[in-house]
Amino acid sequence: MSENSIQERGATAKNASFKCADTSTSSRNHALNAIADALDHHRAAIKQANASDIKRSQAEKLAAPLLKRLAFDDAKIDSVIQGIRDLIVLDDPIGQTKLATELDTGLDLYRVTCPIGVIGIIFESRPDAFVQISVLCLKSGNAVLLKGGREALETNRILYQIISNATAQIGYPDHWIQNLESREDVSDMLALDDTIDLIIPRGSNAFVRYIMEHTNIPVMGHSEGLCHVYIDASADPKKAIPVAVDAKSQSVAVCNAEETLLIHESIAPVILPPLKKAMDAAGVHLRGDLAVRNIIDAEIANDSDWQTEYLDYILSIKIVKNLSEAIDHINHFGSGHTDVIVTEDLESARKFTAQVDSAGVFVNCSSRFADGFRYGFGAEVGISTAKLHARGPVGLDGLVSYKYKLLGHGQIVEDYENGSKHFTHRPLHQQCPL
Amino acid sequence: MSENSIQERGATAKNASFKCADTSTSSRNHALNAIADALDHHRAAIKQANASDIKRSQAEKLAAPLLKRLAFDDAKIDSVIQGIRDLIVLDDPIGQTKLATELDTGLDLYRVTCPIGVIGIIFESRPDAFVQISVLCLKSGNAVLLKGGREALETNRILYQIISNATAQIGYPDHWIQNLESREDVSDMLALDDTIDLIIPRGSNAFVRYIMEHTNIPVMGHSEGLCHVYIDASADPKKAIPVAVDAKSQSVAVCNAEETLLIHESIAPVILPPLKKAMDAAGVHLRGDLAVRNIIDAEIANDSDWQTEYLDYILSIKIVKNLSEAIDHINHFGSGHTDVIVTEDLESARKFTAQVDSAGVFVNCSSRFADGFRYGFGAEVGISTAKLHARGPVGLDGLVSYKYKLLGHGQIVEDYENGSKHFTHRPLHQQCPL
Repeated sequence: MSENSIQERGATAKNASFKCADTSTSSRNHALNAIADALDHHRAAIKQANASDIKRSQAEKLAAPLLKRLAFDDAKIDSVIQGIRDLIVLDDPIGQTKLATELDTGLDLYRVTCPIGVIGIIFESRPDAFVQISVLCLKSGNAVLLKGGREALETNRILYQIISNATAQIGYPDHWIQNLESREDVSDMLALDDTIDLIIPRGSNAFVRYIMEHTNIPVMGHSEGLCHVYIDASADPKKAIPVAVDAKSQSVAVCNAEETLLIHESIAPVILPPLKKAMDAAGVHLRGDLAVRNIIDAEIANDSDWQTEYLDYILSIKIVKNLSEAIDHINHFGSGHTDVIVTEDLESARKFTAQVDSAGVFVNCSSRFADGFRYGFGAEVGISTAKLHARGPVGLDGLVSYKYKLLGHGQIVEDYENGSKHFTHRPLHQQCPL
Repeated sequence: MSENSIQERGATAKNASFKCADTSTSSRNHALNAIADALDHHRAAIKQANASDIKRSQAEKLAAPLLKRLAFDDAKIDSVIQGIRDLIVLDDPIGQTKLATELDTGLDLYRVTCPIGVIGIIFESRPDAFVQISVLCLKSGNAVLLKGGREALETNRILYQIISNATAQIGYPDHWIQNLESREDVSDMLALDDTIDLIIPRGSNAFVRYIMEHTNIPVMGHSEGLCHVYIDASADPKKAIPVAVDAKSQSVAVCNAEETLLIHESIAPVILPPLKKAMDAAGVHLRGDLAVRNIIDAEIANDSDWQTEYLDYILSIKIVKNLSEAIDHINHFGSGHTDVIVTEDLESARKFTAQVDSAGVFVNCSSRFADGFRYGFGAEVGISTAKLHARGPVGLDGLVSYKYKLLGHGQIVEDYENGSKHFTHRPLHQQCPL
């Protein structure tokens, strides 16, 4: 490892990013193949480094969930290698012409996708995140700066060496990947506004929130997933109850799980008794407002429940007077991740999906579908609750920007200002030739 | 004017934004028509308020360029009214289906454009900016908070009243537009992270830079436009000289004007003498490095020239050894706005447009073409040098986000996890029915 400062390494990555932007689809896929082969070849060394990290972290009493995330065994190595093989066959996200317009004869404008530049990845203990996001950055022509937790120091170091050597050997631009492992705080990286174009944090909600609050660099991700299911007056109970149960209990410690169930007052007496039976069977503890507790047994839900992401077998339930109250509740307490309406009324569905301000607005299906793989994106960079750039599950296209290429033959603006020439603004149906 | 705090007014705008997101194309166009009619009808009152602002600002010795921007005369009123009429005929940017995928039979995913939410507009003295960006926000279904300079207090207040009344009278959602004119510093607005989704600043470079550096809210704009023209070894002088002159002198106080000219050393002796003659004729003062001054008369350019946006009849010229040095210079000193290569060599054009990291990378034409109207966008929100969300000249689509609408019939994730159902991921060729 070099002893250069984070600032110097950032500048090096920035310079590399200009070269990466000029690599071919085949050279990037060739580099991905080389990485997959090298990871497979160096399994023993990876597992040895990881065992050392785990041993040290156990001695240092690292919390159990973090220890679990730190483990990088054969199954996880297989999984990241398969992820790379799958990534290779995806379409190239860069070099795609998204708009083509003839401004005038021989003056053609193209909007063409290109890499964002330098992606900063900050993560807690999971070394698989190191590989997964690095290869997504490579596929999309970006350079990447990685800052892992100290607990995974040796695993990250060897992964960096394997990836870096594998791509260098086949002639991919040097320094596209930089592993930061200095003792300085993560704040050094968060201050690299001039170098890093986008930060992707991976870790606990609190970790992601900390990153978002301590940098001016755009952050892609979500700190919270407080998802709602709303059962409308016209809902079909045969859909409503399975959807509410699946959204809550299919997996509880995930961002797209339901945390609060809202029920229209007119249908609550019909829904709540069978719902309670189904939730009991799934091991879900219910908390409810007074109206709910008039119908079924439940602990009392207080105001803090409406803003709590349990990530556990707990569900808060509130009875609402109408659709508007449900929408207001969701827009006030929700996290803008994914919210569901169960209804047979088309106008209710329309109003809900128009007015609920969330990345996912679902009708008659589980919130757990909010996922890049289930959406068919083939690769998932993360799930974003921001409203600019990329929203919801983000595929490879969340790692690209675009630039305008204007190809002329000596045209000047003065000719159009003085009226001797005129714009045609004719759509072109062709790829950018450059 | 209400005496509510900026925080309360922000919350009011946020609530209004959910209603605006559920308005029809025709209701928004109807509201735009009502605004245009009302501005036309109330010209006398607008000019009276503006005269009062100008008189007070003159007494307070407001700087001449700001005084000029403050004026809102009949010509400017005509111009904003025509802008509104033009905006009405543009396609609705929201409600557009951008992706449609069948995840499984009866489970259809749609990516549909929607408003961003609440746009914050902060501007110096120009009252026309108040109208222009407000109506772009209305067309795109956004709510808007405006914070103008104190110098335009009376003009902004009457414009706000006219716009607000005109839309209220035809039943457009109340409170979609909020005029902030409290004595508190602009910093109050910059802190409204929870309310404002995007800030658009309008004013001087220094003003925009201040906004960008003092908020965590995403900012759309550019503080600097330091554009380059590079004349390659293979350039055709009959194209190179007119392009370099137009880019510099067609209009000098604009962000897409050329500030530095780079010339390949092998062609410099051919280019510089006629270039100097043409620049002299256009009234442009030349500054050059030593190699330039060996060929033509020019003031000496020092290092600070390469990072100066003159916005004036001044051009710095540097001779470079090759294309790579030109690219490195531009990526180091440029502002990522628009940069031009003049060349007859296709590979040079390809490399330049791939490696120069700017919103516009032009071949054989003037940098002055970097403009939303010249690009054929029909409306310009601004020009962005950011790489996320929107880059370069930004049309109406820079004011929209998207959400995923997933329309099912009671589907749950467990069925796909336990293998009893399988995703089809079949592209759909249809609009979202909601």
